[in-house]
Amino acid sequence: MARILVTYYSRTGNTEEMAKHVAEGVEAAGVECEVKPVTDVEPGSLIGYDGFVIGSPVYYGMPAAEIFSLFDESVILHGRLAGRAIGAFSSSGNVGGGNETTCMAILQMGLVHGMVAVGTAQGDHYGPVSVKSPDDRARTQCVAQGKRVAELVLKIRG
Amino acid sequence: MARILVTYYSRTGNTEEMAKHVAEGVEAAGVECEVKPVTDVEPGSLIGYDGFVIGSPVYYGMPAAEIFSLFDESVILHGRLAGRAIGAFSSSGNVGGGNETTCMAILQMGLVHGMVAVGTAQGDHYGPVSVKSPDDRARTQCVAQGKRVAELVLKIRG
Amino acid sequence: MARILVTYYSRTGNTEEMAKHVAEGVEAAGVECEVKPVTDVEPGSLIGYDGFVIGSPVYYGMPAAEIFSLFDESVILHGRLAGRAIGAFSSSGNVGGGNETTCMAILQMGLVHGMVAVGTAQGDHYGPVSVKSPDDRARTQCVAQGKRVAELVLKIRG
Amino acid sequence: MARILVTYYSRTGNTEEMAKHVAEGVEAAGVECEVKPVTDVEPGSLIGYDGFVIGSPVYYGMPAAEIFSLFDESVILHGRLAGRAIGAFSSSGNVGGGNETTCMAILQMGLVHGMVAVGTAQGDHYGPVSVKSPDDRARTQCVAQGKRVAELVLKIRG
Repeated sequence: MARILVTYYSRTGNTEEMAKHVAEGVEAAGVECEVKPVTDVEPGSLIGYDGFVIGSPVYYGMPAAEIFSLFDESVILHGRLAGRAIGAFSSSGNVGGGNETTCMAILQMGLVHGMVAVGTAQGDHYGPVSVKSPDDRARTQCVAQGKRVAELVLKIRG
Repeated sequence: MARILVTYYSRTGNTEEMAKHVAEGVEAAGVECEVKPVTDVEPGSLIGYDGFVIGSPVYYGMPAAEIFSLFDESVILHGRLAGRAIGAFSSSGNVGGGNETTCMAILQMGLVHGMVAVGTAQGDHYGPVSVKSPDDRARTQCVAQGKRVAELVLKIRG
Repeated sequence: MARILVTYYSRTGNTEEMAKHVAEGVEAAGVECEVKPVTDVEPGSLIGYDGFVIGSPVYYGMPAAEIFSLFDESVILHGRLAGRAIGAFSSSGNVGGGNETTCMAILQMGLVHGMVAVGTAQGDHYGPVSVKSPDDRARTQCVAQGKRVAELVLKIRG
Repeated sequence: MARILVTYYSRTGNTEEMAKHVAEGVEAAGVECEVKPVTDVEPGSLIGYDGFVIGSPVYYGMPAAEIFSLFDESVILHGRLAGRAIGAFSSSGNVGGGNETTCMAILQMGLVHGMVAVGTAQGDHYGPVSVKSPDDRARTQCVAQGKRVAELVLKIRG
């Protein structure tokens, strides 16, 4: 059965809340979903998932260092995650506050693993973004993102 | 006397309005400012400015092709614009709609000319962004951006 | 039958040559491929392809304005290209010459269309890059990129 | 007297070697330079420098997590580093290996601090990049980058 990992870094709880909505979307599409803080993810365990949706607050226009640590350590699986799906989401304090560049940084790291990155023509193109605590708009975007990554995973697995 | 060019592409008038507020900021800082649509800018005329603030609506996460045309043609001045200041601004229909990546594309093109790119710790980090028609927040960001680029130009000219 | 469009802008012939090698890879994977200059592509015709591989020389760290024009005009299909595959390639005169940012700009525009962007764990992560005229390394990367996008298209179509 | 911090992360010694060449350039321009590994930099000490040149190997198209940790912790100085200069450099194993996106990530973080980011019209536009161990080309780029950031710092300080 297809499995997706939704992982995140969160201090205020905003990004964690987004992660839960992404997970709702994944499960609504009929894909098994695990949700956990990035500091609880063993790099070697990534091999067990067909897709990843990764979220972070914006720190200096970029994901938190904890997100990068996971990617740095994931080098032990380099090449073996190719073809899996990756999506992103982020949370910041401001409209032009680095949300998009944070999502793009996550997608780029996925591309370097040979993953396929998911965007959307509707709403938040590079991944759901929340300005401060997630409102209805952000929640809807998160659920849609979860579905989108799950549907791609189902297609890729055939 | 120091001179800054504020140039933009605009169909709905939103980006044009942002340009006017940027120009207010430039002039408030005591720097001469010219404001014109990007299609009216002769590539060769760029040599006459100490700094540039360039704005565009977001088309597919990027500035309009008209902005790129100006840069493509500016190659006739390659190397001669080094050390001048560059700032960006953008207007889109949506929070995660590509505003930041549009500003960053403009700053990147400036960096390739050897320009110095201006960001801010307050507000819209890569350049003012407006979601739909500019509100008070966006206007304030634009004026501040004009001042910021003008003050850098004054420092660089010494 | 699955169809991929390989389109490019080229003045010196370097990017055009890369396009031909990408097309070889697409066809080797059993997918029909059309190769044409970007200025010959009707925006409305994009609806007829399952995937796109788009290449450009680097102008100021970005694709040529002609590439952006196609995307700007492709708005008539907005939302209807979602789920299709996108890959990129680029050609420049220098190692740190803007190749990667050019590929990323193309992938970003695809993401805004809701496409799925393809990277690779081996070689040129965001898409094949050539420094000056394509050498064996660049050619191999191009063929591999064609195969990769074609294989994704086949999976997505099921 | 003007002071620049050149800081880096390095495991193989390649990025460390680049740092030394950047420092040569800084000193040749008559600016005091301190060179240290990023893990030895106290976030609060950043207030003591007029400019920063930051280098990293490429891990998944991005700087090492250690670089991000310094930025994350530098939030204690948020707003107080505005107007200072920032430059970047990076080292990777491959031409399209993420060098440019690594430099751009560093410059973006500087922009969010309100710093001014330095590019160049000649050579490696976003910052010197080395493919494997630094060769003569990379060394020359590093020295030039050090000079460039130093000269900007001297202008900004007036």
